[in-house]
Amino acid sequence: MTLTACAINCSLAPSGKRESSTDAMIGVLRDAFAMHDVIVGEPIRIADHDVKPGVTSDEGDGDAWPQIREQILAADILVFGTPIWMGQASSIAKRILERMDAFLSETDEQGRMPSYGKVAVAAIVGNEDGAHWATSQLFQSLNDTGWTIPAVAACYWVGEAMQSTDFKDLEKRPEKVAKTAKMVASNAAHLAKLLKDAPYPG
Amino acid sequence: MTLTACAINCSLAPSGKRESSTDAMIGVLRDAFAMHDVIVGEPIRIADHDVKPGVTSDEGDGDAWPQIREQILAADILVFGTPIWMGQASSIAKRILERMDAFLSETDEQGRMPSYGKVAVAAIVGNEDGAHWATSQLFQSLNDTGWTIPAVAACYWVGEAMQSTDFKDLEKRPEKVAKTAKMVASNAAHLAKLLKDAPYPG
Amino acid sequence: MTLTACAINCSLAPSGKRESSTDAMIGVLRDAFAMHDVIVGEPIRIADHDVKPGVTSDEGDGDAWPQIREQILAADILVFGTPIWMGQASSIAKRILERMDAFLSETDEQGRMPSYGKVAVAAIVGNEDGAHWATSQLFQSLNDTGWTIPAVAACYWVGEAMQSTDFKDLEKRPEKVAKTAKMVASNAAHLAKLLKDAPYPG
Amino acid sequence: MTLTACAINCSLAPSGKRESSTDAMIGVLRDAFAMHDVIVGEPIRIADHDVKPGVTSDEGDGDAWPQIREQILAADILVFGTPIWMGQASSIAKRILERMDAFLSETDEQGRMPSYGKVAVAAIVGNEDGAHWATSQLFQSLNDTGWTIPAVAACYWVGEAMQSTDFKDLEKRPEKVAKTAKMVASNAAHLAKLLKDAPYPG
Repeated sequence: MTLTACAINCSLAPSGKRESSTDAMIGVLRDAFAMHDVIVGEPIRIADHDVKPGVTSDEGDGDAWPQIREQILAADILVFGTPIWMGQASSIAKRILERMDAFLSETDEQGRMPSYGKVAVAAIVGNEDGAHWATSQLFQSLNDTGWTIPAVAACYWVGEAMQSTDFKDLEKRPEKVAKTAKMVASNAAHLAKLLKDAPYPG
Repeated sequence: MTLTACAINCSLAPSGKRESSTDAMIGVLRDAFAMHDVIVGEPIRIADHDVKPGVTSDEGDGDAWPQIREQILAADILVFGTPIWMGQASSIAKRILERMDAFLSETDEQGRMPSYGKVAVAAIVGNEDGAHWATSQLFQSLNDTGWTIPAVAACYWVGEAMQSTDFKDLEKRPEKVAKTAKMVASNAAHLAKLLKDAPYPG
Repeated sequence: MTLTACAINCSLAPSGKRESSTDAMIGVLRDAFAMHDVIVGEPIRIADHDVKPGVTSDEGDGDAWPQIREQILAADILVFGTPIWMGQASSIAKRILERMDAFLSETDEQGRMPSYGKVAVAAIVGNEDGAHWATSQLFQSLNDTGWTIPAVAACYWVGEAMQSTDFKDLEKRPEKVAKTAKMVASNAAHLAKLLKDAPYPG
Repeated sequence: MTLTACAINCSLAPSGKRESSTDAMIGVLRDAFAMHDVIVGEPIRIADHDVKPGVTSDEGDGDAWPQIREQILAADILVFGTPIWMGQASSIAKRILERMDAFLSETDEQGRMPSYGKVAVAAIVGNEDGAHWATSQLFQSLNDTGWTIPAVAACYWVGEAMQSTDFKDLEKRPEKVAKTAKMVASNAAHLAKLLKDAPYPG
């Protein structure tokens, strides 16, 4: 069974502006997922699209969410990438979580949200501090909206307190990050396969 | 000495769309502030303006932040209003906090950010649960960016778990909310006066 | 296959002192789990035992954790019950999470922590506000220490803001809480079965 | 006017066990406070005392909190020191916050809690990540229980993600930490003086 993963990048900057550390972290996970026959699609840079604020699945009038929502739900695994700002997940990450609020009322006849049976993992980067808090924001919200969180589902990097090094500029990928990415990918692939074979009954 | 307060409303919806519970809570605080000769300006509904994502004070090209930033910094007190979504402050609230990140590098020759000497309070509403977490997000970020937090600085309301009543639709204003608003306003007015008279030396 | 669940109650008060709302919420989940042939053991009231502060699996000298740790790891599912204080999980809940930190270095030859393949759910109660933040604390920490979080894994109740009603004193169990408990139990039972049959390969 | 500060150290380990990074960070702040004529007392190592779980000011029977509470309230400034575990403040820090919950009902005839007019700052250390989340927990809870938070009130250090260096073992004190400590101390001293001269009217 081949599985697919959809990666989203919730950087505050659109694609052209500068290289993205969040993309770099998603890349680490992509390599790890490849070892488990999971294809991670090209990251969707949310800032390139006009995702409207709101808590429905279509905020009308040019809203880019319906199409992104479709891409996310077409995959078996969500790789949720966000930078850290003010020690927390980015405002764009929060917007995506808010749009998933609609899943709560989009249940099938067994009471299952569209995200049921799919697993989510986090890819988090910052110059300094905030990965655990950002993780807590993602896992609480994603779980609330129907996602399953495999064991050890967060791959992150931050530098020393109050410093400004970017993950993308590190001379070499930290060994511990690569090791964590392997666990995240292995666990997520295993769990996604199990749930695809045997979905939650609702 | 007359003090002024700037109120921002970080609802996900723009003004015309529906009445705002966040505005209703800001109104409770406005009444309480009036008893201390603090004039709270008409709330700035952020969703009515094109505040760009980013962490500088001007993201160029139609960015509405520079003007809002000026209005916020012209006042002595910030009333930060946000609804709760997914148990957390709104994505629009987070965007405002991110824009204030720029204060960290806009210090004067004594090392003081433009927010130094100003006090911030929170006005938080939701259908259910999340006020303490939203408060923690605001106070940590606002303090980091130079704001002073007076004693008992959060006025909030949420309903019973998993319910959907809106604050704006309550038949009467809960007594405890009104009592809390009085404390918030009294403390904020007192502290803002002290700091206006005797600014942080840096 | 019959599954077992271990429930812990992180109330600040020991058993004799007063009836526990956290126990009442665990009871709601126990009823829901019973419909899926999952036996939830008598809740372990942590405050009755001398769990020492620390981050190892045995802090020596009368430490009650080693035995509780064993009971937790003997079950397939963890029902983590905590009251809310100051809008957050209790200090006793935090202590339990800290003790699980040791799992990170107790991996087998495939790099798997003792919690791998086990699922965790949350039972959270408070007079008012805090369930989402407490959930975020639990899910982030539990996931970090190897637990898997099934879809919709938190069952909670809080009353209206600034009120003091206890869950245990409600005249009737809120319908939404019972409905949520059913989802939590169904999802947890399903996922625990899958992982018991097919453990993470590491 | 000479001001006094009470420092608490919420390390999980008692004094004899090992040198404390939290103490080291409190020391950095003590040096900074000395430049503003604020005397920071010897840190109270909470783990050396039997502070009982609970939310009253005296949990009876050997409870060490009443005396510590008195020392804290005798000072003008609270330096709240905590290590980071699981990306959050320690369980012992949480216990202290819970004990302060009692302040809410210990108001004087003007409705002022015993903490009114006192300022609190944070001293936070960890091997890696968690300072912002721990700060948010402290500031939300401390503010709720009547403490005032001066501008830039958190002094912290954490190392690179997933590393294990201790603050106390750093060869030299990071320049940015020293600079932050100076701001924290200057702002806290200034604000504490203002509030001592002109208390909140309630």
